[in-house]
Amino acid sequence: MRKRVAFTAGILLAPAVAFAETPSVDESVALFYEAFDMLWLILCAALVFFMQAGFAMVETGLTRAKNAANIIMKNLMDFSAGALMYFAVGWALMYGDSVGGLFGTGQYLLSGADEVVLRDWMFQVVFAATAATIVSGAMAERTKYTGYLVYSIFITGLIYPVSGHWIWADEGWLAALGFHDFAGSTVVHSVGAWAALAGAFVLGARRGKYVKKNGTTTVNAIQGHSIPLAALGVFILWFGWYGFNAGSTLSGTDPDIAHVAVTTTLAASAGAVGAMFTSWKWFGKSDPSMALNGALAGLVGITAGTWVIGPGASVVVGLLAGVIVVASVELFDKILHIDDPVGAISVHGVCGIWGTLAVGLFANGVNDPGVVGLFYGGGVSQLGVQLIGVIAVLVWTLGTSFVLFATLKAAGNLRVDATEELTGLDLSEHATESYGGFQIFSNV
Amino acid sequence: MRKRVAFTAGILLAPAVAFAETPSVDESVALFYEAFDMLWLILCAALVFFMQAGFAMVETGLTRAKNAANIIMKNLMDFSAGALMYFAVGWALMYGDSVGGLFGTGQYLLSGADEVVLRDWMFQVVFAATAATIVSGAMAERTKYTGYLVYSIFITGLIYPVSGHWIWADEGWLAALGFHDFAGSTVVHSVGAWAALAGAFVLGARRGKYVKKNGTTTVNAIQGHSIPLAALGVFILWFGWYGFNAGSTLSGTDPDIAHVAVTTTLAASAGAVGAMFTSWKWFGKSDPSMALNGALAGLVGITAGTWVIGPGASVVVGLLAGVIVVASVELFDKILHIDDPVGAISVHGVCGIWGTLAVGLFANGVNDPGVVGLFYGGGVSQLGVQLIGVIAVLVWTLGTSFVLFATLKAAGNLRVDATEELTGLDLSEHATESYGGFQIFSNV
Amino acid sequence: MRKRVAFTAGILLAPAVAFAETPSVDESVALFYEAFDMLWLILCAALVFFMQAGFAMVETGLTRAKNAANIIMKNLMDFSAGALMYFAVGWALMYGDSVGGLFGTGQYLLSGADEVVLRDWMFQVVFAATAATIVSGAMAERTKYTGYLVYSIFITGLIYPVSGHWIWADEGWLAALGFHDFAGSTVVHSVGAWAALAGAFVLGARRGKYVKKNGTTTVNAIQGHSIPLAALGVFILWFGWYGFNAGSTLSGTDPDIAHVAVTTTLAASAGAVGAMFTSWKWFGKSDPSMALNGALAGLVGITAGTWVIGPGASVVVGLLAGVIVVASVELFDKILHIDDPVGAISVHGVCGIWGTLAVGLFANGVNDPGVVGLFYGGGVSQLGVQLIGVIAVLVWTLGTSFVLFATLKAAGNLRVDATEELTGLDLSEHATESYGGFQIFSNV
Repeated sequence: MRKRVAFTAGILLAPAVAFAETPSVDESVALFYEAFDMLWLILCAALVFFMQAGFAMVETGLTRAKNAANIIMKNLMDFSAGALMYFAVGWALMYGDSVGGLFGTGQYLLSGADEVVLRDWMFQVVFAATAATIVSGAMAERTKYTGYLVYSIFITGLIYPVSGHWIWADEGWLAALGFHDFAGSTVVHSVGAWAALAGAFVLGARRGKYVKKNGTTTVNAIQGHSIPLAALGVFILWFGWYGFNAGSTLSGTDPDIAHVAVTTTLAASAGAVGAMFTSWKWFGKSDPSMALNGALAGLVGITAGTWVIGPGASVVVGLLAGVIVVASVELFDKILHIDDPVGAISVHGVCGIWGTLAVGLFANGVNDPGVVGLFYGGGVSQLGVQLIGVIAVLVWTLGTSFVLFATLKAAGNLRVDATEELTGLDLSEHATESYGGFQIFSNV
Repeated sequence: MRKRVAFTAGILLAPAVAFAETPSVDESVALFYEAFDMLWLILCAALVFFMQAGFAMVETGLTRAKNAANIIMKNLMDFSAGALMYFAVGWALMYGDSVGGLFGTGQYLLSGADEVVLRDWMFQVVFAATAATIVSGAMAERTKYTGYLVYSIFITGLIYPVSGHWIWADEGWLAALGFHDFAGSTVVHSVGAWAALAGAFVLGARRGKYVKKNGTTTVNAIQGHSIPLAALGVFILWFGWYGFNAGSTLSGTDPDIAHVAVTTTLAASAGAVGAMFTSWKWFGKSDPSMALNGALAGLVGITAGTWVIGPGASVVVGLLAGVIVVASVELFDKILHIDDPVGAISVHGVCGIWGTLAVGLFANGVNDPGVVGLFYGGGVSQLGVQLIGVIAVLVWTLGTSFVLFATLKAAGNLRVDATEELTGLDLSEHATESYGGFQIFSNV
Repeated sequence: MRKRVAFTAGILLAPAVAFAETPSVDESVALFYEAFDMLWLILCAALVFFMQAGFAMVETGLTRAKNAANIIMKNLMDFSAGALMYFAVGWALMYGDSVGGLFGTGQYLLSGADEVVLRDWMFQVVFAATAATIVSGAMAERTKYTGYLVYSIFITGLIYPVSGHWIWADEGWLAALGFHDFAGSTVVHSVGAWAALAGAFVLGARRGKYVKKNGTTTVNAIQGHSIPLAALGVFILWFGWYGFNAGSTLSGTDPDIAHVAVTTTLAASAGAVGAMFTSWKWFGKSDPSMALNGALAGLVGITAGTWVIGPGASVVVGLLAGVIVVASVELFDKILHIDDPVGAISVHGVCGIWGTLAVGLFANGVNDPGVVGLFYGGGVSQLGVQLIGVIAVLVWTLGTSFVLFATLKAAGNLRVDATEELTGLDLSEHATESYGGFQIFSNV
């Protein structure tokens, strides 16, 4: 058999796989429910996959030209190695039979998977890869390629699936508590960000970033090499986020798909506006990379509550995410001196917390009567549960990632040496130049 | 409740939100009609949203490196501020209860919106933002950021919704006349372009563009800094246009979706070919930016009639759009001396007129027996109505935009000063460089 | 009539075109089957269209800045001219009434096409354009623009449709033999690659690529000018491939869509990993452009068998494709001295063979009991048929393309002269610079 194009495609051709004869109306109706979910989840999975391009462009654009190919390689590989790991063990740990609500087991290598499992795996693997790829930005311009590969394997094969099981598997212990994270402010974004925080902390700052002299530390800005690529990346991420959030309805017949798309749009817009004005007020000029990160902050901020928060409140959540992200970037850079070249910890971690807690504040009980926040008469119970989830995932991810990165450091596999860093990781790690034919000046 | 992945997802899970018990066949059938429209409109809305990335890349690529971050910011903000305005008042003015066919009222801030309204808002807001973002290209490299922000608020909050109401709301006065604009050659593209024309006129040309000496004006070409980014933008726009045009069927069960996709493809292709050969004949060499604008011209040209014009005629419409856009760009630049760095007025305005009138010439009465053009035996009546619509929207948009931009100019908020323009708007308006580490030569 | 947004969209509005009155359940069910296929195929066609942007970025990124606009123009025009040719004659030759299984005839200019034919044309034209656009990369940086235009017309108007008819038309002679190529490892990718091979061979290498001196040939690397753009292109291609492969189910109610998406994802991931490690082992460093080509190799490799090969085996197919592509690029460059700037012959041709033969090795008989490979107890018969198909398409494409390119060469229309090549094709062919304002160094 092969691909077929029939000039007069009959109705009976389509479900030929499923039915031996002309399907009855009941069989057709049953098939349609499955088909809606299939189309919706596969198309949304493709959109979420495309976010990999977004992350690659954002991270490349906000770092220096001499490290561009290296960060591209890390992005390509955390998806590629990550997908293979999620196929081998990640899915099993996340959605296999639950062991006390702590992790799953079974279906390793997708053994025995039917089309429904394959569909769900396809939708989930792109979320796992999103968590994984967040880290490369925060650890950019100084991390050994081999060390990053090892990390990639652990996050999609162990760290992400375990905390994911707690929240998104039916029997997960946080799920049982009533923790609500619709599309992954905590499950996906915070996990990526806490791993990034552990990595950036263990790794230390880029050379020339924080210069100590006579007891004072000078904080230098290290400019990225392409705002247009970074902006393209943000637009791609926003585009993919419609798959990320609206796809998380997990049902192609869910009337709430529109609600999710609208709150996602409004929060992202408000996040961009919020960060833009905050940077304007704070720095005297509206800052493009802050505004771009503001849109992402709004998106991360609404991800947990996109289904349970109303349109008006989603503007508030996004706007505050835009303010928070600027403050947080300044805090990590100027006060804590943790060098995060693209602001990933602030965007995905701090705004991930904000979004998760926002559920406990702004959930209005309309779409899900079981989730009502403080401002809509639900008291502090949902907020409390959200806080427990935030802390649990933070402790797990930060702890395991710290051990992982500290081990890599001890083994001499985490950071390139000073010469390699100065030369750039493209030449030192991959013997290539990203921009052959263009002259590139070193800017630090 | 939270996101759920069931290994053995039953059919009854899916519509759980809508039905308390197992849905009957009739209930399922009703749900499916709604689900088709929901999936189709939300996915198409995402595609149209992605056109924002296309505009950003086209405009960045066709202008100078020193203004790249500024134009990105304008693109990001006309969507972000625009979406918030369309949420607050734009939707209400466009689709609220009609006041004499002139504008709508009601549903401010989407109050009382159910899922159908949220779905329709999601699909419409991306069209409003498309109109808004057209202007930034024509006014590039010299417009104050604050002035542009003010403009953004007015176009999505007032100008676009009012003329949109005339045509796309059921009770709009142009709709009542029988004006046909399927996906927005006039409603969206011309509105953006006439605002752009008013803006470019009031603003004046970039320094060094038209140099008067001894009574003669020398017209200088100011090259854009990245044809690859501009080309990427055009491909993204073309891709998104499948959502723009085919989504405008507004129904996921419409068998004419294919017709719309095919005429869109053929007109875009013919537009690229037409502009390419025209520039070849005219300038001696085939010009890449003209060919790229030719594809867009073909797309704009078919947008009004994509549903009522046949495949063969769509090739003619696109081909002529490709010829027209080259002539129009030359006219505005060489004769009228209106400085439009990316050719937006010609692509979206002049070809928007062409596409709107083409309905009155080429509509064949097959898909909509009520719309028949001159060449298919319909006489001049449809053409007359199309002309009325073109003029009405031109007068409204040009008039209001002129007042807006003239006011901004009088307030000193429209144009950067000479030094800022020479330095570039990235540094002067945002204190940033778009390409840190690359050497950039000023080329004017 | 015009576009309509109803605040209270009733169910009966949607199918108004198809039914005069309220549709019966049976009519609705019939409509839904058609609507699923329509939405699926048009959305997938849009995704496959977007692959044009991917090819443009990959080819631009992997070649020099001085030829960037030229390669963009070739990419834009092979789609645009190609779509018009496929409209005029290509579709007729491929899917018209079969003449002895060799080619089709009828439906020129889509005459008499109903919505089902328009839908199928839309889905097929983007595949034809994919085959066409593969060639530009292999012939980059030295091919005359006019010569390339002539080629574009022949591949979509003659070469591709004929071999496509053999395999994908119901009556095609290879189809009758049982040749299986689900989404086009041979039909699309190999056809493009063999045309590319003929072109690159007839054309000769770029100046400075292979330098003979005293009987030895020095092979010079000519670096591309933007790894980030090339990487963006690969991510776009991968994204579009979900439409390419999963859309090739041709049915929106096919439960195997998930299977196809999963094997596509795993093979691409394994391809990237395989090529990355192979280049690392071979060259001492992991090579970014090899890793990127590895992902494409995995995608091409799984395209034929994506439906009939299981997830585990798809990892093997992709991994080996990643190894093969590195070996093949080295073979063509270092041993055969055929200058293929982007590796298109290896990615699409050699891995196209591999993918087609892999069906005869790894097909497991689960989804299609009629296609069973050697390793799953099917013996060598399927493998034999696959080999026949590979050879037949190779002979046809290489033969016709060779005649075409040799004729163009004889007519002086194939290759630019030495000065033009040195200057770059942007200036010599299009009188434009791709990067106005950036300084570009010649690097050969």
